[in-house]
Amino acid sequence: MRAPGDALKARAMTKTSAGNFFEDFHLGQHIEHATPRTVTVGDVAVYNSLFGSRFAVQSSDVFAANIGYPRAPLDDLLVFHVVFGKTVPDISLNAVANLGYADCRFLKPVYPGDTLSAVSEVIGLRENSNKKTGIVYVRSRGFNQSRDIVLDYVRWVMVRKRNEAAPPPGDEVPELPKSVEPSQLGAGCPPINAAEYDTALAGCPRRFGDYKAGEKIDHLAGVTVEDAEHMMATRLYQNTARIHFDHFGESKGRFGRRLIYGGHAISLARSLSFNGLGNAFHIAAINGGRHVAPLFAGLTVFAWSEVLATAELPGRNDVGALRLRTVATKDRPCADFPYKAGDDYDPAAILDLDYWVLMPK
Amino acid sequence: MRAPGDALKARAMTKTSAGNFFEDFHLGQHIEHATPRTVTVGDVAVYNSLFGSRFAVQSSDVFAANIGYPRAPLDDLLVFHVVFGKTVPDISLNAVANLGYADCRFLKPVYPGDTLSAVSEVIGLRENSNKKTGIVYVRSRGFNQSRDIVLDYVRWVMVRKRNEAAPPPGDEVPELPKSVEPSQLGAGCPPINAAEYDTALAGCPRRFGDYKAGEKIDHLAGVTVEDAEHMMATRLYQNTARIHFDHFGESKGRFGRRLIYGGHAISLARSLSFNGLGNAFHIAAINGGRHVAPLFAGLTVFAWSEVLATAELPGRNDVGALRLRTVATKDRPCADFPYKAGDDYDPAAILDLDYWVLMPK
Amino acid sequence: MRAPGDALKARAMTKTSAGNFFEDFHLGQHIEHATPRTVTVGDVAVYNSLFGSRFAVQSSDVFAANIGYPRAPLDDLLVFHVVFGKTVPDISLNAVANLGYADCRFLKPVYPGDTLSAVSEVIGLRENSNKKTGIVYVRSRGFNQSRDIVLDYVRWVMVRKRNEAAPPPGDEVPELPKSVEPSQLGAGCPPINAAEYDTALAGCPRRFGDYKAGEKIDHLAGVTVEDAEHMMATRLYQNTARIHFDHFGESKGRFGRRLIYGGHAISLARSLSFNGLGNAFHIAAINGGRHVAPLFAGLTVFAWSEVLATAELPGRNDVGALRLRTVATKDRPCADFPYKAGDDYDPAAILDLDYWVLMPK
Repeated sequence: MRAPGDALKARAMTKTSAGNFFEDFHLGQHIEHATPRTVTVGDVAVYNSLFGSRFAVQSSDVFAANIGYPRAPLDDLLVFHVVFGKTVPDISLNAVANLGYADCRFLKPVYPGDTLSAVSEVIGLRENSNKKTGIVYVRSRGFNQSRDIVLDYVRWVMVRKRNEAAPPPGDEVPELPKSVEPSQLGAGCPPINAAEYDTALAGCPRRFGDYKAGEKIDHLAGVTVEDAEHMMATRLYQNTARIHFDHFGESKGRFGRRLIYGGHAISLARSLSFNGLGNAFHIAAINGGRHVAPLFAGLTVFAWSEVLATAELPGRNDVGALRLRTVATKDRPCADFPYKAGDDYDPAAILDLDYWVLMPK
Repeated sequence: MRAPGDALKARAMTKTSAGNFFEDFHLGQHIEHATPRTVTVGDVAVYNSLFGSRFAVQSSDVFAANIGYPRAPLDDLLVFHVVFGKTVPDISLNAVANLGYADCRFLKPVYPGDTLSAVSEVIGLRENSNKKTGIVYVRSRGFNQSRDIVLDYVRWVMVRKRNEAAPPPGDEVPELPKSVEPSQLGAGCPPINAAEYDTALAGCPRRFGDYKAGEKIDHLAGVTVEDAEHMMATRLYQNTARIHFDHFGESKGRFGRRLIYGGHAISLARSLSFNGLGNAFHIAAINGGRHVAPLFAGLTVFAWSEVLATAELPGRNDVGALRLRTVATKDRPCADFPYKAGDDYDPAAILDLDYWVLMPK
Repeated sequence: MRAPGDALKARAMTKTSAGNFFEDFHLGQHIEHATPRTVTVGDVAVYNSLFGSRFAVQSSDVFAANIGYPRAPLDDLLVFHVVFGKTVPDISLNAVANLGYADCRFLKPVYPGDTLSAVSEVIGLRENSNKKTGIVYVRSRGFNQSRDIVLDYVRWVMVRKRNEAAPPPGDEVPELPKSVEPSQLGAGCPPINAAEYDTALAGCPRRFGDYKAGEKIDHLAGVTVEDAEHMMATRLYQNTARIHFDHFGESKGRFGRRLIYGGHAISLARSLSFNGLGNAFHIAAINGGRHVAPLFAGLTVFAWSEVLATAELPGRNDVGALRLRTVATKDRPCADFPYKAGDDYDPAAILDLDYWVLMPK
């Protein structure tokens, strides 16, 4: 017989969400995420104070209007982080590792005043051989207040099982494109008047035609991360993953300290990439990304990029696409483009991101 | 005879405000506080980046409009902190301790673009037996630009005397309600369309009827506080209490370091309480609150809540009220609901807050 | 013969800007700076959270409208920092030291929603005798979206040479005014209705006539700076000087750590100066400024001011001007107004700022 106190405690337990475990998912599961979020010029300012982005289109309403936007759109990665953050309480609160991204497309500009929400579908499940964890594949979509899809991406995460004895909830690994086709790029960028794109004001003289596949660019500067900064960013996105916030718990955990949200490194690298890629004003797609190693406060992030390919966008003469690999490192300048030795990443590497950006022609 | 330098110094002294001391107050004194403050979506974003609040009504203009608000209102505690901050230069610049709150009612929603100002009345004074300090009771009111009262509360603080020999400026302790009556709740929440309140989007399936007096909820997560964070928050509210900002001075003071503004712990606990109380979208009143122990940077805050009572609001079918006790701790998870042993608080407790929240029916 | 890798590296080098070196400048050179920037209530909120400014005109749309502004203007120093930040990638990325400011005039109020851009002209060049560095004098102007000049100032910086053997690119030192004439003050402040200026709400009873040349004011409070704070501020201004951000690089550099942007100390001192100068609502001009010593995170900033002069503004009865010297120190309260011993600054001094503020009559 249970004492009344136990019953009370049990009821209390059900009031609090401990997140989903591997066996709680099923193939085809449709999850409507909380919390809808009106993004504002306030969010833009906090984001800028944390990353110092300098892309002119996102920085100036006048610059944006001159080339054909109604006003300055939000930084694409701010949109990504806000949508991603919504998925965390349902998808990855019990994640051991965020394994990868694929087929991520930015489909519509987002402006201050828009309200973002997110929905995910479980498209793959595979239990790991240790039966302690499994991999969950989800396709997540971000919507604006008109129910336009603004962002569509797949990610897969390794999630703990609540109960090792539970049968696997499914066994299917989705086929995912290695990269987004150029024909699928550009929905997130309205037709622009490239002649009105003022490269002097934008801070970089080079346009699409000035880049060639194979060239590498060291973005030179380094930026040190503080705990207050990554926590403020991650909270701004309403991302609730505890490993980023709880020093008391993490001091006894795997890393002995708070782990920085992987997206923080992506935003830092994007911001650093302005030096050399100043007119890469829009991220059209992310083909794939790996958080190669964890990042902690006190470390300094550097980055370099390689142009993997260039592509025309069918039917568009205003912009072209560069496929980039941007590698970020910690406490390691990138003048010699550190990447891999054989299959192993350089020990300083923290991020390997493969994505498409648009540049004016 | 005073040297000219002394006279100059004396005049200079009068230019600078060192704040009021105990003997500077008198019963019935009416104080109009500086500085009027237009609150904006920028303030909302900074607040969100510091606390990561996820209540849907305050997060989304669309969600708020669907249930009957004109748009997303400000977080109630942001309003509280801004009004409170205005009172600091006049009331508590020379405070030894912020002793308590009572009869705090949120009377009108505040929206971005509103301009807040504050007025206080001294309603009680009692010298302490050591004659070095006295207790000042003030009723403070926050107003919007239309002179509507948005917030009304009593707080009492222990304030230093400038001169121990000064006679006590008064001797009266006001009678204060132990809690706000349910009939006095709800002015700060417009009539809402509870049927349109989407609990899936809000992130919590439970409504007013799902909670019972006596149940306890562990809010699970912990969040570590950094010096940059609490100083940014406290400055956002234009709260000038030096103990929060001056490491040089405080390193030689009572705690050997900066003390975190007590309201910071309240906002952290409120934010943590989303997990388990996700539809408690409005703080209607604060019955009382104690800052049980000081909080410092580097510590991790956890929280749990007990439902003390449930109440109907006379004449309203849209929302009901829960009276909650939320206890926050430092470096101490709350699975076993740490509170008191006899009259003594658990050594990890930092906050004991008794308040009313509204939930949709 | 160069290997293909070298060619690739050389091409990559040209994509990235390492900033201008001394020999890259020439007299009369006109530089249009990136990045245009729409300033918003979000920027205001982040700025407020970092400096806690309390001047009523900038804090409240209602207060500002009551005296004749269309709404609350931006803090003058926020405008200064945003314009200054734009000049950094072109002027001072290779600076050894920021030597001084002169003839800085605020010519038009800036409001949330305005878009700022900047242009500089090289007005002086002088090589140092060691031939390793030279001094570059630039007149920089900030514009709003209507091409009105909102800010006009001269600064000079010591910039490294890329190649010691390069001939000096010019040899001319401009004549600069020791201070801005009172007749040149006030363009940045619309005619105000001084009778409607509510000193109680503003938090300070004293108007222009209450101050006399020679009086000194200790601003009392101290505020400690954190790395997260100064980096957030400096990024908010899109200031890219690496010395503020890269702990890894700077740990091996001149100071062994990140140097705080000099403008951070100016904003902190301005904010502290509210206590004693609460109605000095507008900075009309900066006559000159010296960053006497570097500031680092963990140190606490104090400040005091001396009224150097008072002046009427020709043709205006609404406001008068005070010429102030504000001195900021680190880890050193200012009750005894620390300044110079002979020609040497007090060892705790970090800032010596000479400027004009406007006050209501």
